[in-house]
Amino acid sequence: MKWLNDRLGGLTFPSPLKLSSHRGDQIADFVDDDARILVENDWNVLQKQAKEPVELEFFEKSGPRARIHFDPGSIRAAIVTCGGLCPGVNDVIRSLVMQLHYHYGISEILGIRYGFQGMSIREAGTAIILTPSVVETIHTYGGSLLGSSRGPLSPIEMVDFLQRRNIRLLFAIGGDGTLRGAMTINEECRKRAFDAAIVGIPKTIDNDIAFIDRSFGFSTAVEKATEVLACAHAEAHGAQNGIGLVKLMGRNSGLIAARSSIASGYVNFVLVPELPFDLDGDNGFLAHLQHRLETRGHAVIAVAEGAGQDLFVTTNSTTDASGNVRFEDIGLYLKQQITSYFEKKGISCTLKYIDPSYIIRSTPANTEDNIYCTELGQHAVHAAFAGRTGTVVGSWHQEFVMIPMSLATAQRKVIDLDGHEWLAVLQATGQPHLMKNT
Amino acid sequence: MKWLNDRLGGLTFPSPLKLSSHRGDQIADFVDDDARILVENDWNVLQKQAKEPVELEFFEKSGPRARIHFDPGSIRAAIVTCGGLCPGVNDVIRSLVMQLHYHYGISEILGIRYGFQGMSIREAGTAIILTPSVVETIHTYGGSLLGSSRGPLSPIEMVDFLQRRNIRLLFAIGGDGTLRGAMTINEECRKRAFDAAIVGIPKTIDNDIAFIDRSFGFSTAVEKATEVLACAHAEAHGAQNGIGLVKLMGRNSGLIAARSSIASGYVNFVLVPELPFDLDGDNGFLAHLQHRLETRGHAVIAVAEGAGQDLFVTTNSTTDASGNVRFEDIGLYLKQQITSYFEKKGISCTLKYIDPSYIIRSTPANTEDNIYCTELGQHAVHAAFAGRTGTVVGSWHQEFVMIPMSLATAQRKVIDLDGHEWLAVLQATGQPHLMKNT
Amino acid sequence: MKWLNDRLGGLTFPSPLKLSSHRGDQIADFVDDDARILVENDWNVLQKQAKEPVELEFFEKSGPRARIHFDPGSIRAAIVTCGGLCPGVNDVIRSLVMQLHYHYGISEILGIRYGFQGMSIREAGTAIILTPSVVETIHTYGGSLLGSSRGPLSPIEMVDFLQRRNIRLLFAIGGDGTLRGAMTINEECRKRAFDAAIVGIPKTIDNDIAFIDRSFGFSTAVEKATEVLACAHAEAHGAQNGIGLVKLMGRNSGLIAARSSIASGYVNFVLVPELPFDLDGDNGFLAHLQHRLETRGHAVIAVAEGAGQDLFVTTNSTTDASGNVRFEDIGLYLKQQITSYFEKKGISCTLKYIDPSYIIRSTPANTEDNIYCTELGQHAVHAAFAGRTGTVVGSWHQEFVMIPMSLATAQRKVIDLDGHEWLAVLQATGQPHLMKNT
Amino acid sequence: MKWLNDRLGGLTFPSPLKLSSHRGDQIADFVDDDARILVENDWNVLQKQAKEPVELEFFEKSGPRARIHFDPGSIRAAIVTCGGLCPGVNDVIRSLVMQLHYHYGISEILGIRYGFQGMSIREAGTAIILTPSVVETIHTYGGSLLGSSRGPLSPIEMVDFLQRRNIRLLFAIGGDGTLRGAMTINEECRKRAFDAAIVGIPKTIDNDIAFIDRSFGFSTAVEKATEVLACAHAEAHGAQNGIGLVKLMGRNSGLIAARSSIASGYVNFVLVPELPFDLDGDNGFLAHLQHRLETRGHAVIAVAEGAGQDLFVTTNSTTDASGNVRFEDIGLYLKQQITSYFEKKGISCTLKYIDPSYIIRSTPANTEDNIYCTELGQHAVHAAFAGRTGTVVGSWHQEFVMIPMSLATAQRKVIDLDGHEWLAVLQATGQPHLMKNT
Repeated sequence: MKWLNDRLGGLTFPSPLKLSSHRGDQIADFVDDDARILVENDWNVLQKQAKEPVELEFFEKSGPRARIHFDPGSIRAAIVTCGGLCPGVNDVIRSLVMQLHYHYGISEILGIRYGFQGMSIREAGTAIILTPSVVETIHTYGGSLLGSSRGPLSPIEMVDFLQRRNIRLLFAIGGDGTLRGAMTINEECRKRAFDAAIVGIPKTIDNDIAFIDRSFGFSTAVEKATEVLACAHAEAHGAQNGIGLVKLMGRNSGLIAARSSIASGYVNFVLVPELPFDLDGDNGFLAHLQHRLETRGHAVIAVAEGAGQDLFVTTNSTTDASGNVRFEDIGLYLKQQITSYFEKKGISCTLKYIDPSYIIRSTPANTEDNIYCTELGQHAVHAAFAGRTGTVVGSWHQEFVMIPMSLATAQRKVIDLDGHEWLAVLQATGQPHLMKNT
Repeated sequence: MKWLNDRLGGLTFPSPLKLSSHRGDQIADFVDDDARILVENDWNVLQKQAKEPVELEFFEKSGPRARIHFDPGSIRAAIVTCGGLCPGVNDVIRSLVMQLHYHYGISEILGIRYGFQGMSIREAGTAIILTPSVVETIHTYGGSLLGSSRGPLSPIEMVDFLQRRNIRLLFAIGGDGTLRGAMTINEECRKRAFDAAIVGIPKTIDNDIAFIDRSFGFSTAVEKATEVLACAHAEAHGAQNGIGLVKLMGRNSGLIAARSSIASGYVNFVLVPELPFDLDGDNGFLAHLQHRLETRGHAVIAVAEGAGQDLFVTTNSTTDASGNVRFEDIGLYLKQQITSYFEKKGISCTLKYIDPSYIIRSTPANTEDNIYCTELGQHAVHAAFAGRTGTVVGSWHQEFVMIPMSLATAQRKVIDLDGHEWLAVLQATGQPHLMKNT
Repeated sequence: MKWLNDRLGGLTFPSPLKLSSHRGDQIADFVDDDARILVENDWNVLQKQAKEPVELEFFEKSGPRARIHFDPGSIRAAIVTCGGLCPGVNDVIRSLVMQLHYHYGISEILGIRYGFQGMSIREAGTAIILTPSVVETIHTYGGSLLGSSRGPLSPIEMVDFLQRRNIRLLFAIGGDGTLRGAMTINEECRKRAFDAAIVGIPKTIDNDIAFIDRSFGFSTAVEKATEVLACAHAEAHGAQNGIGLVKLMGRNSGLIAARSSIASGYVNFVLVPELPFDLDGDNGFLAHLQHRLETRGHAVIAVAEGAGQDLFVTTNSTTDASGNVRFEDIGLYLKQQITSYFEKKGISCTLKYIDPSYIIRSTPANTEDNIYCTELGQHAVHAAFAGRTGTVVGSWHQEFVMIPMSLATAQRKVIDLDGHEWLAVLQATGQPHLMKNT
Repeated sequence: MKWLNDRLGGLTFPSPLKLSSHRGDQIADFVDDDARILVENDWNVLQKQAKEPVELEFFEKSGPRARIHFDPGSIRAAIVTCGGLCPGVNDVIRSLVMQLHYHYGISEILGIRYGFQGMSIREAGTAIILTPSVVETIHTYGGSLLGSSRGPLSPIEMVDFLQRRNIRLLFAIGGDGTLRGAMTINEECRKRAFDAAIVGIPKTIDNDIAFIDRSFGFSTAVEKATEVLACAHAEAHGAQNGIGLVKLMGRNSGLIAARSSIASGYVNFVLVPELPFDLDGDNGFLAHLQHRLETRGHAVIAVAEGAGQDLFVTTNSTTDASGNVRFEDIGLYLKQQITSYFEKKGISCTLKYIDPSYIIRSTPANTEDNIYCTELGQHAVHAAFAGRTGTVVGSWHQEFVMIPMSLATAQRKVIDLDGHEWLAVLQATGQPHLMKNT
């Protein structure tokens, strides 16, 4: 795997930051340009990995360099936000602007409107100038000050946009697709020998980016999801054989459902994309649900949107001649399956289905995320001035690191069903380890 | 109209409350049994109403009587909660128990499980004993400690339940249907000459009970709805031609949508059941929505679930041969209509639809509702000991009053489109007065 | 008492509002200029008051008039905020600006900085132009966009400021002192025959303005106070003989302490300015507190800052030779008295004292207050265009009315110890009716 | 340094947990008893540390063992909470009870009342039985279900308490002092050869325990502190030369002040115990504050309670003949110094001082802390069954580890003024690197 980031060239200029290079003088220190953070910290894994210590894998440590690649006085910066909303986007924008303006002295920062589309020839005039006073209070709102859109744009058009305006620092806040788009920008810049740093701040509310402790917005999403689960519990508890069913975000990774179920303290079943489960049969989900109702009188279920997708194929292949996938929504599907199961059994129950959808992603960042976003913004700027490009910043084992975009997008973080995080969920909820017939 | 409440008979016993009958001694006073509150306070209306002052309409004022109808030492009380959840149900239960236990000295209070069904012969054993320690912290939760269900039970079965246990005070927390059920209990009690007070605490999250300033839970519902509208605004604002569409509660009365739209500060259109509107045409909703997008780039719409029900008939009669009403959900219907309207116009837009549903009703009561619930519980107990029956309690023009159930259920409170409350909505949102083609 | 407001003169111009004068056409109606709301609604009081119906007291009903006193196209408006912070100040400012701009078409609205001082010759240049985009999001913050200060300014200087800029509508948001200041402005305007409407929006977090259902910010203050009381309960409950003591706002009226104590559900003693109480003696507060600790192991006390002021004199006159009032802070004084009382008794206890101070008043308005502030802003503008001056707006028995400033400042609203509101507090807390030795 | 924990002896019994020992079977795995986590992950430090890989420092990894030291069927467990309140104490209690009851099958769990004192002979009878239903909802409250107290008890008395009741698992939730007390219990147990596991869950709201990523409650404390800082900003912003001064927790470590100042986005100065600063002089704090007022018109200051303690000595030695330390409270001291400084300069300013004190520590845990507490409770139980004693559990670089109490109490975590965390604070606030005259 490729752990080192592309570099634009030498660190030619002295940093405008008045930091120290000596530990112990009570002045914050510059970070050595070759500082590194070990990737693995499990001893057993390390012993296998490292026959020789030098072969250990590491990330580049992020932070301010004593010497920097760009002359801040002669360049412009730009910020773009892409994809769906996520708590904290405004916090990152704010931090980038504050850092660029106050600490590196960038005189003009462009805010590109509505994602990559805002760099098209047609929309180029819509960009706005970002100053500290423009962004001063935006961390108190959800959404994105700049607006967002989905979909790529030709790297040629985008680099034209940058080059015409002498934008040498581009900060892209977005998910997998955005980072891939940013990589094409980076390649086009290299092709043209246009000396620009393309730095990403990875955005995924599902927290499914590998090699990053957590993605911004995830803490807020879990908090909001936990509130919704409390509502589902109130509904379930308030009816005879009451069932509260909540659909949460999580296409490939069920982390929001998993963590919020621990926090809730009231969830009995957590269905995530990583976990194969049967509906029917003695060890199927429905039998376990029935058991829960019989013994406790109510139940709360959290289901991630990507869970149980294999169920649809089976259902359709056996019941639908045309072969079309009829059910696309696991939440509504479960609602229907549970209801008809108990109807057939002659057991009266009351199911309340909650799909909080956009409520979770459009909320302002909580304190944890706000702080993390602020730090991410600061480190993204440090990374760009350190001449890294095609790079994302994130925290790894409590340190901030720089990771190649190619690595960050190479695989997704998913729940390890054998690991301690999932065990915590099982123990907090009492859910069976397997709901699958053999 | 019938403003006076049924009375069980004389006020035979001295109140155990150590209150005063003299104003000015700094000890809270008993309320005269014939104290009354004027219904109307608009001078113009009053002048028409009252050719002679004695003909003015009034409510009976609620509060502790110096002499009471029941001997607290020899009777039992019971509490039942029916219908859908509403913020504050637990707060009312808690207040009733505290008041009955600490102030009137009722030694046993039964909590009936899962609504009127809990009084059936089959379920009668499920009732629980309510004490101060059982209810001490329940005001911090949403839902109902006792559980709820819908649907009536034979008054004979219910009065059997009461009579066997010597329950002379029954407090029913519920909506229209519950109050009608309580009226049948009351009639059956009278028929049997079973001396019991049946007192209701009206529950309607929609705030659509006439002759009551506001119903409990409404303030909380508006608060939660306002949060959701802020989410819709973040979504709308974050996209080119972004539209945030939120469906809120309100079958007959759009008060939640109306009030939360004022609070939000970001809503542009509020569609309520009281307001007839066209979708199409020059002065239709869709044309106004298009104008908003063209001038401001985004829009937020709040729609009450009972709004625009006349639209379905028209649609179906023209497009569906079978004559079935296909669209039952105004939220999903609007989502579809808006999307297809702009598609036809070739205008690209991004619509985000939010249906918060149970999230709003299962939340704990906010401070306003908590206080009001506490007072309602206290006054319901006062009313029962004052020998009133078939009565609900509520606040009217800042005073607590007792109102006959028959009156409280006779008509619904709806938004007066000619009145100042709706004007406040129109002025806060900028919505046109009429969206109807002539 | 003087219930009618001063009028500037005729209603010369047609209103720019497109409202209706016919009930039942589903278009919001203008309000008749002589519409009135009855002050009293208690039947017993009314019967005494009114031997003849015409003698009943009433307020002028607020709302839009079909004809107005000013030509909106030729005048300016200004807004000033004075005194201490209160939740909702920004909401009122926002509503005034939106109403003036969008509905009455005022082209320039000045925001005066830092209270009346901002109208002085020295500071006159600091005023800012208020537009919808300036105020769009300010309702999400606490504080005052305009800033505030205390203290008056010469009416001559202030009217000079208005007259030079052709400011014919002045909206003053402030408390008693501010309203008195506004009255001097009004008198000076009348003296000069300067045709300007001076309208107040009464601000008192203590809710102690008479003749108004409630003042804005009060609901939020009660909510925040309730949160603090929950903290005090956690502290008290977590220690043997734990005592949680919270000092809340309320110089003359203990309404914040009273209402938040009901909401909390955990308060045992509420000490307010209206309630005389002894510390010592068999029926003194300390003996009751000791009893509470002995029977329940912990206690929570809410004390309003103006409570027990008579205690200081007594204490000092007996213990301090110099005659100086040594204790000015009832919170700290109680803390000391309670601690030394139990020390003397040899009873170990743990007292935690919380003074939330500015936390409560600098918080953003909650939903209830936000809506009320929005309506107050709308009605203040209606009042000014109706040619009323020296007027405040407020709600009375669920209607919006206009009240002369002289009446609004003539007396304070205090808790009626004989009334039902205080009874609700006593019953919710279990506090003795009197803690006074005879 | 001593990284390995004491072990009680062999892992004699099979675990009742139905986990797997094979990776990849989608069943959560037992953790090898010798699994370890590397302490350091900075490459430069590692290279110095490790001439040979085997010498690297590591922690023992926490988690369920396939074989355990105790037979769950024959022992009892107990829980004790000591010291000041901290958000999350109830969450830890709840998780311990749930884990012991449902997963390890402990039949009786004692809750010791009011700290170590509850194990004294006098108080021994006050302990309560903890079951899942007792703790079911306690995570929604602040405080401690069990109550707390300060101060130690003789280890002999405490081990007598344990031995008489066959309590073999003692979970102590508390700070430094508590862990030292637990160490004396552990030693006394070893002395008597009483086979009991003493496991600590370190509690410090200041987050100042070394070798742990974060302590529970810290996230909540930062969140509440951030709210208070927003209040201070509203106050400061609302007055000419307004100053908001907030005192926050942090006796030795200013982490709450530091992190909440980042989150707030409005703080200009953060004074922490780690940072020496002068008040006077050209480069002193007061000169910088004056500069801020002159350029921006308002300022917000966060001060940790342990900051600037050296100032008192100096002040007193120069101004107070008796040599007594007169000022103990840096918040009040700063308030006075700032006020008199600007008075002397003839600059009018308005300072609002907020001391939120107990509000921050008595609040319920937020979602982050709730999850962490749940995991801590689970791992504490795993640790005890793994036969570790004199051990605390915590997270280290995203893994849960077991750390000897002696190590955990050996040093405090403080802010590294040369490190990246403090740099983030300086960059977010704009505070000078040094406020010290040379």
